[in-house]
Amino acid sequence: MKATFMYGAGDVRVIEVPDPRIVEPTDAIVRVVRGCICGSDLHPFHSLRASETGQHMGHEAIGVIEDVGADVRTLAKGDFVIIPFHLQDNTCAFCREGVHTSCIHGGWLAGGQGEALRLIQADGSAVKVPGVNPDTADDALLGSLLTLSDVYLTGWHAAFMGRVAPGKTVTVIGDGAVGLSAVLSAKEMGAERIILMGRHRVRTDLGREWGATHVVAARGAEGVAEVIELTGGEGSHVVLEAVGHMPAYEQAYGIVRPGGVISRVGVPQYEAASVGFGSLFGKNATLTGGPAPVRAYIDAAIPKVLNGEIDPGRVFDMTVGLDGVPAGYAAMDAREALKVMVDPTR
Amino acid sequence: MKATFMYGAGDVRVIEVPDPRIVEPTDAIVRVVRGCICGSDLHPFHSLRASETGQHMGHEAIGVIEDVGADVRTLAKGDFVIIPFHLQDNTCAFCREGVHTSCIHGGWLAGGQGEALRLIQADGSAVKVPGVNPDTADDALLGSLLTLSDVYLTGWHAAFMGRVAPGKTVTVIGDGAVGLSAVLSAKEMGAERIILMGRHRVRTDLGREWGATHVVAARGAEGVAEVIELTGGEGSHVVLEAVGHMPAYEQAYGIVRPGGVISRVGVPQYEAASVGFGSLFGKNATLTGGPAPVRAYIDAAIPKVLNGEIDPGRVFDMTVGLDGVPAGYAAMDAREALKVMVDPTR
Repeated sequence: MKATFMYGAGDVRVIEVPDPRIVEPTDAIVRVVRGCICGSDLHPFHSLRASETGQHMGHEAIGVIEDVGADVRTLAKGDFVIIPFHLQDNTCAFCREGVHTSCIHGGWLAGGQGEALRLIQADGSAVKVPGVNPDTADDALLGSLLTLSDVYLTGWHAAFMGRVAPGKTVTVIGDGAVGLSAVLSAKEMGAERIILMGRHRVRTDLGREWGATHVVAARGAEGVAEVIELTGGEGSHVVLEAVGHMPAYEQAYGIVRPGGVISRVGVPQYEAASVGFGSLFGKNATLTGGPAPVRAYIDAAIPKVLNGEIDPGRVFDMTVGLDGVPAGYAAMDAREALKVMVDPTR
Repeated sequence: MKATFMYGAGDVRVIEVPDPRIVEPTDAIVRVVRGCICGSDLHPFHSLRASETGQHMGHEAIGVIEDVGADVRTLAKGDFVIIPFHLQDNTCAFCREGVHTSCIHGGWLAGGQGEALRLIQADGSAVKVPGVNPDTADDALLGSLLTLSDVYLTGWHAAFMGRVAPGKTVTVIGDGAVGLSAVLSAKEMGAERIILMGRHRVRTDLGREWGATHVVAARGAEGVAEVIELTGGEGSHVVLEAVGHMPAYEQAYGIVRPGGVISRVGVPQYEAASVGFGSLFGKNATLTGGPAPVRAYIDAAIPKVLNGEIDPGRVFDMTVGLDGVPAGYAAMDAREALKVMVDPTR
């Protein structure tokens, strides 16, 4: 079967690999119905050290169960499922506390940009979608369900950890698919004002449709000054940082209000950063966030997609077959595409 | 009158200065009944650059109102008051949100280690203590009231921002007066287990009396390993960091549980620190804290002191007159004293 591997920065290849097979009795094999390319895939696309083994790509997928291990209790061949980008038993102490991304039996999904994948901890990981036939459902519905695997619920996680609530001013840094999902989530949570920092008109227009009340195109000190002015000199109660680069972090502590919260979901491309009196401590700012425990939020999100309350799949503006995956990476990297869906049936 | 100034690292002098006077109509003049030396005073005691003007010391005090400006409405000569280490109008947007340390008209108290001081924003800053005569009250009561000016409520702030609650495991880093106050506060908030990291027996004994269930004397990687073992490999839900030096911060992210909270109240002696995937982000740890908005907590704390529910003044184990202030700094620096009370009437 075909799968996507990255062999170094900019070097994405779709290759022939052996079909996945059950290894542990808690495994399942999933035929991928749709996968996609993540904004976070662009980080290794820029910086991955070259290797001969490569890195198996694709951590977002919806699919159909093809086979299950002997210990799998809740899934059967033919079930249509959403697979979170982080896999978990959904029973350990951390899962019970809602931090599934730290599951003691967990791991990261790989293989979503291919024809099929091996799923560990299948019972705890895959979430069945009732009443949808993936072979006849339209791409809009499939796309929205696919965002529950990562991107929309990563935006939701940002807003949830940022304690967005009615009356709050929320600033979202980044107009990528996660940033826009954070706008949508902040709106759902009742934010009073949502300032979207981004400069790509087609993206910020979707952000406005989803609830952004202001768009700030400026960056750096100029962007900070503009947000401070928009907030009457006081700063933003909540800042959702959906980029992961240092300038975004610096913007975040520049605009956060005293006593406010910076919630990061962009995977930080730095380890050390300012946290002292001049950045976070002096104004009692809180820094939170991390990889989204999608499994904690997915059950509540599925009905909202099925009943049309939200349409997070609108972040997809390009679809490729497996052979088009390398071109999909290039298009996202060049910002010609916001988010690329991968349809292995094409 | 006499006041304490620091002219450089290790150079503390009690000098003769002009009596303070009303400058703004919102000012008051306070005769200091008791002041004290703060653990955070040891930071400049180690590193203050030498100067001829010096730094006016003492940001904790209880005292009696001697004079008030024309616009002061709630205070009168003779009132016995607690003065928070940060002064504020108690009416601005940030004060209303409980972040008084960011008050737009605020400032830091100075002069607590002297005979009298000028208080800005007197109505918003000074808090009257009803029914106590400071000239006849015993030192135990005065000491406990004095801790509401900073140290006890700084420990409270740590626990409050750390969202300490019943069922939680809380680790306190630092057995200084703030760390011990954090233990007491965590106990009041119902923490199930309180691990105190400290190595000074007389201090950790007070910590045990106040609610610490475990004491860990080891530091660094060894200390981290011990706390991880104590928590069944899972880590501490809440870490209260009451030191401010980098090794304490590193311990904090080493022992915090996935999804847990690090709450800092030790003034950070660093600006940059680890916050990336390997420290905070990967395990969805939250970093919070800052200078304590004492004014937000003081009204609720006064009755607890007056009715004997808490006795935070037990952190004082040495009392000096004004002439003894330099010796008090030396004793705290040498860890011969936990916290030094200054009695200007001696």
